[in-house]
Amino acid sequence: MLNIVLIEPEIPNNTGNIGRLALASGSTLHLVKPFGFELSDKRLKRAGLDYWKHLNVVMYDSVDDFFEINKDADFAFFSSHGTKSHWDIPFKDNQFLVFGKESAGLGSAIIEKHKDSLYKIPLYSEHIRSLNLANAVGIIVYEGLRKLQL
Amino acid sequence: MLNIVLIEPEIPNNTGNIGRLALASGSTLHLVKPFGFELSDKRLKRAGLDYWKHLNVVMYDSVDDFFEINKDADFAFFSSHGTKSHWDIPFKDNQFLVFGKESAGLGSAIIEKHKDSLYKIPLYSEHIRSLNLANAVGIIVYEGLRKLQL
Repeated sequence: MLNIVLIEPEIPNNTGNIGRLALASGSTLHLVKPFGFELSDKRLKRAGLDYWKHLNVVMYDSVDDFFEINKDADFAFFSSHGTKSHWDIPFKDNQFLVFGKESAGLGSAIIEKHKDSLYKIPLYSEHIRSLNLANAVGIIVYEGLRKLQL
Repeated sequence: MLNIVLIEPEIPNNTGNIGRLALASGSTLHLVKPFGFELSDKRLKRAGLDYWKHLNVVMYDSVDDFFEINKDADFAFFSSHGTKSHWDIPFKDNQFLVFGKESAGLGSAIIEKHKDSLYKIPLYSEHIRSLNLANAVGIIVYEGLRKLQL
């Protein structure tokens, strides 16, 4: 089982799509406030379809709360500033895969503290700085399922 | 290099996101008409950001035109009716990865004719029938890049 962590997500369609991905992949979804939308947002429900009620979701009031509650977890962090490829992640069962907000990514304090477990998805064009957040989550979660042979 | 083929795509945000994925992964995007949107749709440009102009795109007037022009290509087709996992695709350089429309998937004639090269992404919940199209494309294209060591 994997854990998908969204720190301060901003775009409801992305969180909806990632909810669908979490359920499809048997993952737990961790959402860290503040969000850029209301949980009642129609776009969240539409992108997540009718699946939301079946999902394992854990909410946190702040980044500090998240790290305090999960302080013993195995983490992998994702950023376009990562130097290692997501194909090189030593995936472990119950690992926490941590993604920053769409506009700015993970904060510099998190990146600095966890730079040994900071990964990126390789991009093959100088014109692209990043992938859509939901696409990035999907690529990484299914690579994890493959490696863990789940 | 991989080729992403969308047959009769309906949702502009998905095609925009898949354009971004195509550029990010160094793939060519093949779009088969009719579309469920105008190519001038703002949602297409917004999801694809400013990247569209850098993208290799090929358009076709019909499914018949697509298969006539690419009749000698290596194909892999994707459907929730597939029996083989996308992890078992024997990826080849220049392969064509073919996806159906969001509402209905690939037509039954295509599925019947190509059932030996029909794949699905494994889903781990009985509550999910399929992933978002752009998420499915991202998962499969990056698995192809991994296998081809691109």
